[in-house]
Amino acid sequence: MEINVKPVAFVTNKRNTPTDDFWGDTISEITLAEHIPTEAFDDIESFSHLEIIYYFDQVQKETIVFSGRPRGNPAYPIVGIFGQRKKDRPNQIGLCTVELIEHKGRSIFVKLLDAINGTPILDIKPVMKEFGVQKEIKQPSWAADLMKDYWK
Amino acid sequence: MEINVKPVAFVTNKRNTPTDDFWGDTISEITLAEHIPTEAFDDIESFSHLEIIYYFDQVQKETIVFSGRPRGNPAYPIVGIFGQRKKDRPNQIGLCTVELIEHKGRSIFVKLLDAINGTPILDIKPVMKEFGVQKEIKQPSWAADLMKDYWK
Repeated sequence: MEINVKPVAFVTNKRNTPTDDFWGDTISEITLAEHIPTEAFDDIESFSHLEIIYYFDQVQKETIVFSGRPRGNPAYPIVGIFGQRKKDRPNQIGLCTVELIEHKGRSIFVKLLDAINGTPILDIKPVMKEFGVQKEIKQPSWAADLMKDYWK
Repeated sequence: MEINVKPVAFVTNKRNTPTDDFWGDTISEITLAEHIPTEAFDDIESFSHLEIIYYFDQVQKETIVFSGRPRGNPAYPIVGIFGQRKKDRPNQIGLCTVELIEHKGRSIFVKLLDAINGTPILDIKPVMKEFGVQKEIKQPSWAADLMKDYWK
């Protein structure tokens, strides 16, 4: 079973190289692809946060793995690909919750998106409180360590 | 630009019809597709919550819209497709945060997944606190109204 998808929008920002950390200052413009009408963004500004599903288009198929140490760090355990957020993963799909700063016609401007310049976007969804985590989040200690400089 | 993806897993549960509400009691089994090795789930149980990106395979292309009233409810405003979570959307991608109950070999069992029996899954990611919303969530009043019976 093969599924075809098509980018609905593209990212423009100042990050041209895939690097791991320091995403806190990056403002990204997300512009609708040609085949998507402007109305797809109507009233999006009634939400403060969005979920952005995107495609890691720079990933080479040969680097995709099914398990490994997060960021290759020997201090972390070997975990399956679905127990980590590494980009070199089956289907190369990324996901990030962002803050919406502004909506202007065919573009939105967002903060806290960890995708580089030119990244194709597959979907955009508004964050609703009711879809959020209702219980305490449990995570291994390597996750907090890995994330320590991510949003700086 | 066309992108090909392939299901990495499939959902098994008791919901066979796409209906809107009352997902609170549904337990779903998510089983890896044949081409994904078992190790892809290694240590996934070190996380309490997962993000499930799936494909609304029952949606017919003709029903996809770019804007409209959420659930067709005349009491709600017309909003763009990226300002609502309707399933009849470009690329037919669904997204839900679930609670992980158990990991058993090639299967995981989860709660609070809003996908029906047989749904193809495109990716699974662990929820890390650092990726969560750090500020207060703002949403329109129709969103809370629409969600009132969703998790019952």
